[in-house]
Amino acid sequence: MNPTTQKLVEQNAPAQLVDHNLVPETVCPGVLYEKRPARNLKGEVVPGLYNVWISLDNPKQYNSYTTDMVKGLILAFRAASCARDVASVVFTAVGDKAFCTGGNTKEYAEYYAGNPQEYRQYMRLFNDMVSAILGCDKPVICRVNGMRIGGGQEIGMAADFTVAQDLANFGQAGPKHGSAAIGGATDFLPLMIGCEQAMVSGTLCEPFSAHKANRLGICMQIVPALKVDGKFIANPLVVTDRYLDEFGRIIHGEFKTGDELAAGKELMKRGEIDLSLLDEAVEKLCAKLISTFPECLTKSFEELRKPKLDAWNRNKENSRAWLALNMMNEARTGFRAFNEGNKETGREIEFTDLRQALAKGMPWTPELIESLMPGAK
Amino acid sequence: MNPTTQKLVEQNAPAQLVDHNLVPETVCPGVLYEKRPARNLKGEVVPGLYNVWISLDNPKQYNSYTTDMVKGLILAFRAASCARDVASVVFTAVGDKAFCTGGNTKEYAEYYAGNPQEYRQYMRLFNDMVSAILGCDKPVICRVNGMRIGGGQEIGMAADFTVAQDLANFGQAGPKHGSAAIGGATDFLPLMIGCEQAMVSGTLCEPFSAHKANRLGICMQIVPALKVDGKFIANPLVVTDRYLDEFGRIIHGEFKTGDELAAGKELMKRGEIDLSLLDEAVEKLCAKLISTFPECLTKSFEELRKPKLDAWNRNKENSRAWLALNMMNEARTGFRAFNEGNKETGREIEFTDLRQALAKGMPWTPELIESLMPGAK
Amino acid sequence: MNPTTQKLVEQNAPAQLVDHNLVPETVCPGVLYEKRPARNLKGEVVPGLYNVWISLDNPKQYNSYTTDMVKGLILAFRAASCARDVASVVFTAVGDKAFCTGGNTKEYAEYYAGNPQEYRQYMRLFNDMVSAILGCDKPVICRVNGMRIGGGQEIGMAADFTVAQDLANFGQAGPKHGSAAIGGATDFLPLMIGCEQAMVSGTLCEPFSAHKANRLGICMQIVPALKVDGKFIANPLVVTDRYLDEFGRIIHGEFKTGDELAAGKELMKRGEIDLSLLDEAVEKLCAKLISTFPECLTKSFEELRKPKLDAWNRNKENSRAWLALNMMNEARTGFRAFNEGNKETGREIEFTDLRQALAKGMPWTPELIESLMPGAK
Amino acid sequence: MNPTTQKLVEQNAPAQLVDHNLVPETVCPGVLYEKRPARNLKGEVVPGLYNVWISLDNPKQYNSYTTDMVKGLILAFRAASCARDVASVVFTAVGDKAFCTGGNTKEYAEYYAGNPQEYRQYMRLFNDMVSAILGCDKPVICRVNGMRIGGGQEIGMAADFTVAQDLANFGQAGPKHGSAAIGGATDFLPLMIGCEQAMVSGTLCEPFSAHKANRLGICMQIVPALKVDGKFIANPLVVTDRYLDEFGRIIHGEFKTGDELAAGKELMKRGEIDLSLLDEAVEKLCAKLISTFPECLTKSFEELRKPKLDAWNRNKENSRAWLALNMMNEARTGFRAFNEGNKETGREIEFTDLRQALAKGMPWTPELIESLMPGAK
Repeated sequence: MNPTTQKLVEQNAPAQLVDHNLVPETVCPGVLYEKRPARNLKGEVVPGLYNVWISLDNPKQYNSYTTDMVKGLILAFRAASCARDVASVVFTAVGDKAFCTGGNTKEYAEYYAGNPQEYRQYMRLFNDMVSAILGCDKPVICRVNGMRIGGGQEIGMAADFTVAQDLANFGQAGPKHGSAAIGGATDFLPLMIGCEQAMVSGTLCEPFSAHKANRLGICMQIVPALKVDGKFIANPLVVTDRYLDEFGRIIHGEFKTGDELAAGKELMKRGEIDLSLLDEAVEKLCAKLISTFPECLTKSFEELRKPKLDAWNRNKENSRAWLALNMMNEARTGFRAFNEGNKETGREIEFTDLRQALAKGMPWTPELIESLMPGAK
Repeated sequence: MNPTTQKLVEQNAPAQLVDHNLVPETVCPGVLYEKRPARNLKGEVVPGLYNVWISLDNPKQYNSYTTDMVKGLILAFRAASCARDVASVVFTAVGDKAFCTGGNTKEYAEYYAGNPQEYRQYMRLFNDMVSAILGCDKPVICRVNGMRIGGGQEIGMAADFTVAQDLANFGQAGPKHGSAAIGGATDFLPLMIGCEQAMVSGTLCEPFSAHKANRLGICMQIVPALKVDGKFIANPLVVTDRYLDEFGRIIHGEFKTGDELAAGKELMKRGEIDLSLLDEAVEKLCAKLISTFPECLTKSFEELRKPKLDAWNRNKENSRAWLALNMMNEARTGFRAFNEGNKETGREIEFTDLRQALAKGMPWTPELIESLMPGAK
Repeated sequence: MNPTTQKLVEQNAPAQLVDHNLVPETVCPGVLYEKRPARNLKGEVVPGLYNVWISLDNPKQYNSYTTDMVKGLILAFRAASCARDVASVVFTAVGDKAFCTGGNTKEYAEYYAGNPQEYRQYMRLFNDMVSAILGCDKPVICRVNGMRIGGGQEIGMAADFTVAQDLANFGQAGPKHGSAAIGGATDFLPLMIGCEQAMVSGTLCEPFSAHKANRLGICMQIVPALKVDGKFIANPLVVTDRYLDEFGRIIHGEFKTGDELAAGKELMKRGEIDLSLLDEAVEKLCAKLISTFPECLTKSFEELRKPKLDAWNRNKENSRAWLALNMMNEARTGFRAFNEGNKETGREIEFTDLRQALAKGMPWTPELIESLMPGAK
Repeated sequence: MNPTTQKLVEQNAPAQLVDHNLVPETVCPGVLYEKRPARNLKGEVVPGLYNVWISLDNPKQYNSYTTDMVKGLILAFRAASCARDVASVVFTAVGDKAFCTGGNTKEYAEYYAGNPQEYRQYMRLFNDMVSAILGCDKPVICRVNGMRIGGGQEIGMAADFTVAQDLANFGQAGPKHGSAAIGGATDFLPLMIGCEQAMVSGTLCEPFSAHKANRLGICMQIVPALKVDGKFIANPLVVTDRYLDEFGRIIHGEFKTGDELAAGKELMKRGEIDLSLLDEAVEKLCAKLISTFPECLTKSFEELRKPKLDAWNRNKENSRAWLALNMMNEARTGFRAFNEGNKETGREIEFTDLRQALAKGMPWTPELIESLMPGAK
C-alpha cells in the first residue's frame, strides 16, 4: 500500500472491526478452509490479501459430502464472504480423481428411505449449501480436480467460474438412482448450455467429457493433466484431434470407442496426473479478479448470477418438497438398489419391471419395492 | 416382469382402471397414432410397454396441418400422456421430404383474411397443440424426417429432444408472408440457440441446415440419410468437411454455393434417401429413456421444460390477440399474395412499396391491399 | 341488427363456418350446458345471442365433481369459448345448498390412496379444468348458489366475477383432510384478499361467510336469498347489522355465536331459500358485459386475468407432482379417515398422534397409517 | 399417542436421529428461545410437542436488535425449523411497549456511516434474518406486544400471521432518517395492503394504529390490552367506536386529535396494560395450526409465502447494494442527525436545505454533510 494511503488507514480505519460472520469460525472434518496469499498480475504476493481455498476432503468416497460436510461448506462460504482480506474463493477437493460425486447414498438408503420429514430437513441443508455459493460476496472459482457428477455437478454449477483438468467428467445420475437433478442442475443447465443439451444431460445420465463441457458452456477453461514421458498430452480417452466426423457431425469431446479407446487406456496407464497447470490457471484467474474495483466486481457478478439465482429461488422449495415425498417410492427403491446391489446383481433395478407394474395401475407397496431389489429374484 | 412383482401386481392392481383420457380415443384423418413395442438397452422388446409414434400424414402438402389435424394432435398427445403402457412419444411425419411446414395458407388467405375473431379461435387450437406437447407426461422426441419450417419448426421445438436426418432444413418464414413466428419460435429460440442467432432465425426467414441447427443447439443429434452407391454420405448441399473458411469464420453447416453446390445437386440426384439410421437413433434414445425411474424422469423433464414453458405461458395469449388483428392488414396481404401469386408474379408483395406508402402516413384500406398483390401492377 | 349491417352480413359472411371446437359437443352426465337468450341493458332479448349456463348437477353429493364431470367441464368451457353466438358464461350448480365442495373423496380414499402415478393423471384433468376456465374466451361469472368449499372454491376463484347468494360459505379444507389447497387457492387468494387473510383461509380450514368474502374481495356482489314471511332478510347466522364490536374490531360478516346464533337458526327454519335476486344480479351483469366491444372486452379480461394465470401456470405442475406423491402418506391417511370415519369416531385423525410419532423420527409405514384411523384405538 | 402408534414408533423410529441443525444450539444475549408445551383445541397439553417462543430481549432500547441479536435470530429460526417436536414459532419480544423498532442507529451513525463495504456485510445478516423467517419450516406467528416500527415492521411482516395488542402501532421510518424500507417492507406491503396504501406507509413515515393495520390487512387479529378499572377497553387514542366521519370518509383506526386525544391520554394513564388476551389469541391460533397434517400445512404456507418470497428474493441483493452505497450520503447524514441531535435541535436535518443545494447541482462533500447537522447553524 502506498504510504499516504497507509497513513490515512491508520488514522481512519475503525480500531475495532465488527465481526459479521454468523458464528465463530469452526473447523469441520471433511472441509478444508485455507487462506493462500493472493498474487497480482505480475505474480507478486500482495501482503495482507488472500484467496480462500475451500476443499472437500473425503477422497476415499470420491469426495461425496456427509451431512456435516454440507454444514461445513455453508459456514465456510459465509466466512469467506465476509472476510475483509479475502478476494476470491477457490472451491475444489483433495486428490485428482473426484471433485465431488454428490451425497452419501448409504445414508439415503438406510436413514432417509421411507422418511420424507427427515429428508426435507437434509435437503434444507443441501439447498442452503447451493444458496451459500450463489450468495457468497466473493467470486467463486470451481477448480475441477476430477469427476464432477450428480450433486457434485449441481454445487459446482453454482460457482461463477469453472476451470477443469481435462480428465474430469461432468454429468448427472438422478433418474437411474431414484432421484432427479433438481438440486440446481435443472435450473442451471438450460441457462449454461441451452435447453436441448440440458434435456440430454439432465435425463439420460450420460457424462460429458471436460472438452465437451467446455465446448457446450459448462466450464470456461480446461487444462491438460496427463503427463506421459514428462510431456502433457490431451485426455487420451476423448476425441481431441478433430472437430468433425466423416458425416460433418461434431465429435470434438466425445468419448472414443473400440480400438481408439483401448489405445487411449494404454496411454493413461503409462501416464501420471499432474494438476500444476490447473493451479496455474486458477491462480491466474484469481490475479485477474483481484485487479478490479471490489464493489464493481461484486455488483457485476451479483447481476450476472441472477439468471441462475432467480431460477434456483423459484424452484428450490418445490423441489425439496418433491424430493422428500419421493423418498417413499423411487428414491427408496433406487438408493436401496445402489446400496444393497453389487457387481453381480448390478446396482440398478430392472426399470421395465417397475414400468410394467405401473402400467397395470399397481399401487406402490413395500412388497413391490422388495420385489424390485437387484438379485431379489 | 420378475415373478414376484408379477404376483404382487395381480393381487394389488385395481381391477378396473379409471380412464383419465379427456375423450375416447378418436382417429383423426391426417394424424397417425401407432403404439410400437418398446425395447430396452439390449434391444429386446419389453412386453406390454410401447412408444407411441404420432405422425403428421399429409405428405402431398409437405405435412402442413389442417384445422382438424391440429385437433387430432391435441387429442393424440393427451392420449399418449395418460396411456399407462406408453414410455415415450416419437413425434414425426410420413415420408422423407417434410416433417411439417406449418398451417394451411390457402385457408388463411381465403377464410381467415380480414376476420380476426375467427383467426383468434383457430389460434386457440394452434396454441393448445404447442401446450399439449409441452404438457405431455411422457418425453417427446421429434424425429425430423424432412424440412421443419414455420409452424412446423415451432411445434417441433416444443419437443424435449430433436433427432434429425441431415438433409432436413430448419427455419421460420413469418415476416415474409405477413405473420410472425410467435407461435413458439420467439419463445424457444433464444433459450435454445442464444438471443443473437434467435434474432437471425426469427426475422430473416433464412433456413438453417441440419448441421448448423445441430451446432447451434436446435437438435441434439443428426444422422446421414443420403445413400449413394449403397453408402451413406453427409448432406452434399452443405459444408460438412471443414469447420472454418480461409478467414477463420465458421462455415460448418452453411449451404454450398456455386460449383460446390452444383456438384452437390448432382450427387443428390444419384442418391436415394434412407431413414434407417434415423429410426435406429430414435429407438436407441427411447431405450435410454425407458431405462430410468418413470416419476424421476417425468420430474426431471418437467423442471427442464420450465424455461420454454414459462416463456410460452407468458406470451401465447398476447401473441394470439396480435395474430388475430394482424389478419386485417399484413397477414391478409401476405397470405393472399402467397395464395394468389405464381411462378411469374412471385408469391411475395413488393415490401418497399408498402413501406414507402406507410412512410407517407397512408392508412390501411382494402384498396391499398389490392394494389400490393403480386402481378396487380 | 339494423338492415344495412344485416345485408352486408348476408353478402360477406362465410357460407360455411369452420368448427373450432376441439371435439363435437358432447353431453356429460353431471354437467348441464344451457344456452339462455342474452338480454341487453333494457332487458330485451337479443335475437341470436346467448349466455351459456354451465351447471354442476350432482346436488345429492353437494355438487362435488366426479372424474367424468371434470372432463365434461373442460369440454363445456371450450365449447362456450369458441361459440360465436355466446357472450358470457355463467358457471353455477343445481339447487341452493352447494355450488361445489370439491372432488369425490370416496374415490380418493379407495382408488388413488397409495397410487401416485394414477393421481398424477387425475390431477392433470383437475388442473386442465381450472385452466379451461382461466382460458375461456368469454367472461366467466360464478353464480354461487350455495357453499363453495375446497376444490369448489378453487375452481370458483378461477372465474372472472363471483356473484353469491348471502347464505353461501366460502373456504378451504385441505390441511385437515390430508391435502393442500394448491389446485388454485394458494395462487389466487393472495391476489384477491392479500397475503395475511390468504394465509388464514389457506391453512386454518375455517370458512368465510358470503358477507366476509365480499368484504375481503372474493366476490364482487352478494344478494339476500332467505325469505321469511315473504320478505328477503340478510343471512341470520352472520353479523350483518353492525361493522364493529365494542373494541372497534371488525365483526361484519363473522358467524354469530351463543344466543344470537340460536335466534338466527330459528329464523332460518321459518324461512325458504329464493335465488331470484341472484339470477337477476347475474342477468344484469351479463347485460352489462354484452354491451361492450367483444375484442376489447376479451383483451381486457385477458390482461386482468394475468396475475391469477401467471401464478397458476408457474405452480400447477409442481403442485400436481407433490399432490401425487402425497397420496403415499397424508392424503392416504386423511381421505381414508374421512371415508371410513363416522359420527362417533369422527372423520379426522388425532393430528397430535401423528405429530408425536414424526417428532420421534418415525418413518411412514402402512401400519402407522392403520394405527391413525379414527376408531382404530 | 394411541398405544398402537406408540408401539410402532418404538419399533421403527431410528435409534439415533440425525442433527439437521446448522450449528449446535447457542444462547445469544438479547434473544430468548423458549419451548412452551403445545395445546390442542380442547386446551389440553400435548406431551412431547411444543411451540417455540423466540423473543427479542432488549426492552430498554425498544427491542431494537444489535448485530449479535440478528445472528441469534437467524440461528433461532433455523433451530425451530428443524426441531422435530416444535409445531409453531411465536415471534415476539419482552415487555409491552415495543415488539421491535429496527436496528441500532447509534452503530449505524458511528461505525457504518461512510463505510459501505462494512454496511454491505451488516445487511447480509439483516437479509438472512428476514429469509430465515420466510424459510422456517414451521408456521410463524408474530405476537405484536407493542410498537412494530422500521426494521421491526419489516421482520414482523415476514411472519405468516400477525396477532397484535391494539395499543401497538405499525409503520416505517426510513426516508426521514436517511434510509429506505427496502429490507422487506417495499416487497411485502403492496402484497398485503395494496399498492396505494403501501406507497403511503413506505414513504410518509406515518404509523398506522393496530385497528387500521387490521382493517388494511397487516394483521389478522387484534385484541384489547388496556384495562381500566379492571375492564378491558379499546385503545383510547384511536377512533374505534365508529367507521365513518361526517363526510362518509373511513376514520376507523385513525389517531384521535384535539380533546378526544386528550381524554384518551387521561384514560391511558388510569389504565394498565394486560396482554393476557393476546396470549390467549396466540395459543388458540397455535392449537388450530397443530390440528392439521404437518406436511400439508407446510406445503400450504410454502405456496402462500411465494408472493412475499418471490418479491424478496428478486430485490434483496439490489437493495443491499444500494443501502451500502447510501452510507456515503443520505444514511450518513440522516443517522448522524438522529444520533447527534437532541430535543432542542431535533433529530432530523432541514430536508429542504439539502433539496435546495442539490437543485443547484451541489456535489456531496463531507462539508455539505456537516453543514446539514441539526444545530450546526
